[in-house]
Amino acid sequence: MRPKPISWFFENLPGIQILEDRYKTSIKQSYALSGFIPLETASIEREEILTSKSGDNEIYGVHRLNPESKDSALALRFDLTVPLARYVAQHEWELKFPFKRQQIQKVWRWERPQKGRFREFYQADVDIIGNWDLPLFADVEILFTTHSALRSLWVWTFVINLNNKKLLIGYLQAIWIEKSKLIETIAIIDKKDKLERKVLEDLFQKISISTDAISDIIKLIDISETGDFDTIFDSFGSLENELLSEWLSEIEYVYNSLIKLWLSSDDIKFNPTIARWLNYYTGTVYETFLTGYEQYGSMCSGGRYENLTSHFTKNSFPWVWGSIGLTRLLSILISEWLIEEEKQSLTQVLVTNLDDAHLDKYLDIVRLLREQGIYTELFLDSSAKMKKQLKYANDKTIDVVIIIWEEEIKNNTISLKNIATREQKEVSSDTLLEEVKNMLN
Amino acid sequence: MRPKPISWFFENLPGIQILEDRYKTSIKQSYALSGFIPLETASIEREEILTSKSGDNEIYGVHRLNPESKDSALALRFDLTVPLARYVAQHEWELKFPFKRQQIQKVWRWERPQKGRFREFYQADVDIIGNWDLPLFADVEILFTTHSALRSLWVWTFVINLNNKKLLIGYLQAIWIEKSKLIETIAIIDKKDKLERKVLEDLFQKISISTDAISDIIKLIDISETGDFDTIFDSFGSLENELLSEWLSEIEYVYNSLIKLWLSSDDIKFNPTIARWLNYYTGTVYETFLTGYEQYGSMCSGGRYENLTSHFTKNSFPWVWGSIGLTRLLSILISEWLIEEEKQSLTQVLVTNLDDAHLDKYLDIVRLLREQGIYTELFLDSSAKMKKQLKYANDKTIDVVIIIWEEEIKNNTISLKNIATREQKEVSSDTLLEEVKNMLN
Repeated sequence: MRPKPISWFFENLPGIQILEDRYKTSIKQSYALSGFIPLETASIEREEILTSKSGDNEIYGVHRLNPESKDSALALRFDLTVPLARYVAQHEWELKFPFKRQQIQKVWRWERPQKGRFREFYQADVDIIGNWDLPLFADVEILFTTHSALRSLWVWTFVINLNNKKLLIGYLQAIWIEKSKLIETIAIIDKKDKLERKVLEDLFQKISISTDAISDIIKLIDISETGDFDTIFDSFGSLENELLSEWLSEIEYVYNSLIKLWLSSDDIKFNPTIARWLNYYTGTVYETFLTGYEQYGSMCSGGRYENLTSHFTKNSFPWVWGSIGLTRLLSILISEWLIEEEKQSLTQVLVTNLDDAHLDKYLDIVRLLREQGIYTELFLDSSAKMKKQLKYANDKTIDVVIIIWEEEIKNNTISLKNIATREQKEVSSDTLLEEVKNMLN
Repeated sequence: MRPKPISWFFENLPGIQILEDRYKTSIKQSYALSGFIPLETASIEREEILTSKSGDNEIYGVHRLNPESKDSALALRFDLTVPLARYVAQHEWELKFPFKRQQIQKVWRWERPQKGRFREFYQADVDIIGNWDLPLFADVEILFTTHSALRSLWVWTFVINLNNKKLLIGYLQAIWIEKSKLIETIAIIDKKDKLERKVLEDLFQKISISTDAISDIIKLIDISETGDFDTIFDSFGSLENELLSEWLSEIEYVYNSLIKLWLSSDDIKFNPTIARWLNYYTGTVYETFLTGYEQYGSMCSGGRYENLTSHFTKNSFPWVWGSIGLTRLLSILISEWLIEEEKQSLTQVLVTNLDDAHLDKYLDIVRLLREQGIYTELFLDSSAKMKKQLKYANDKTIDVVIIIWEEEIKNNTISLKNIATREQKEVSSDTLLEEVKNMLN
């Protein structure tokens, strides 16, 4: 049988797996630093739960293979949010709110094959769920935490594009766009990156937006692309709309808190034209783009929604969410050569295995190093030539090789070899640990 | 819709999830220390790959939900071994052998509901795969590494029961059991823990084993239960069988290397009657029992198999394997009260949020502590009473609370409160970090 994997399911060779693991660890640590506890949900849910909030055409169902049966109607999760909603509603009397949690797990989607899409991939989510109310600072924490996580990866510059759903709608109302035309108008604004200004204007005209209003919208688009926070902020100031000023003060609070917490103003952009998720979210919304690679879309998105659990309970659980598309991010960084494999294994020290007569001595060293937390292997085959053992260390990017052979036995010493620098030195048993640690630094 | 989870799928509340995470981290770290690189495989395989090595009556198939289709015949993995075999064969020219890898991921099995069984659960595997040959030290590494991982959890005493398939068969041949009766004889030996000696003897008689041989087998069972390594070892010595002595020297090598590496002789038992996996394995085989809770079965098992990839490639990949049944172990430790929840979150410091006017000051502190790697939250709601904020800290087992209110502003100080000891002290901004670190230790 050919050992064929399934297409569009992501699987790594060791060098890349080590990078993916490092990413997961960094993200998890960044999330925990802001107080998000790790939480996992089952991979499988009842079908009706998964289809409650989404179309079901990308969902994988699950059935018993033999005897074939589907009586329980189960399916694999396609995101981490629907299971979270079920979990929160199920445990609403046991959990303490506001509930801050993180989840870095796989989801499955039947996707039409295309670059950067996978049928099994990691999402790295943070969520804050309130009970009836959830203060605005939750939005700050979600943005700060996902930003810190991305920054902890040190891979590339990226810019958060921040908006508030209410702002764009408030702006459109303040320039007298009729309510019935809001959705169409926003849909056209959403095409701003793909179409020329002239084409946009024609589209607005087609749905009978006034010339003045079109000019205002184009002005907003232009200023959103080039202006700094204050310029964009001030451009709203001339409009008379009481609610608008309330929403502006909200975004000012979020922006200023983020700068205060650690963000550089280069890392975050106020972009009042972000419209993509507006149907779903009810307040803050954001997307994050790799600088120079904006064409790949957002690597980290999120926003605020007024009630996470509306399908499952009568109580209200307002919710802010942020998510890093980990598998997608990693696949783009690799295909664009923005990161490269560095290590082929995590092992730091290889003890060569050159003579069964010295096994006890080898084992003493392995034990000593492992007790000190140094990742150590004994070469498995004592009949292998020295050259083969050194090649193994080289292939697996092991840093230090320990050699005990005739010469060393005679002198009662141990030889250390630094694979990268080819430096080799003889040391005594007493100083071995110290010398190994020096070589590893 | 009721937020009903699916039965027999394991899901944790935060306190237990924190324990599970700590277990996964410890096991992963122990595995890495012995040079096993982390590797993950896709959760889904082609059906024919999963059914190549096992009956398919516990496998979950996967289909596209809408439009309903199963043309690709996919299924969820039921262990981590079959996907590993596929992966190794698929990448046989890219991987470096011997290949040492670890995998801590979920598997899915349609199981008949019963205590301690789940339909989704974590396995924590280590594997060493050789190319055409694999020295005996690989067996030592697998046993040592899974043992170290269990010991790193500090939960309970456990005993490895070690055997070699060839030994039991060699013994039975040396006492003149006919080849045609070997399988039946071993099946009876396997019932030794559940049946009285007298009943065992009757069963042996029924398949026409000689009285002398029965007496030898019973002697072996008795000595396996009570004897130390040397006693059991010596009991084989009286038998004349050249191969037996070769196999005995193998088990002696494994046992002595383990003791040398770090195992106490209390932690490992030579048990020549372990027979359960004999059909599958070809050399070393072991099982691990929690002392006093042997009735729950083995928590960690493994062994040697002569060719991992025989279904997929003509090349030979001998393989040694060990696996901790993590979900099972955890569920038993919890239900037997051998471990308890300690923390409800990972947060170490809560900065109370008592007045919007001081937000900048609060954010300075949050930033300072997070930069130092201290897990810190700002209470989200500035309108909440102090009492409510302290209750939150208490509910989430947060260690230290920081208070800045009228008194503190007047004195230009910061108050620290240790939730466990109720100790409270006023400190200056300059010494805040140091004082927080002291309180956390």
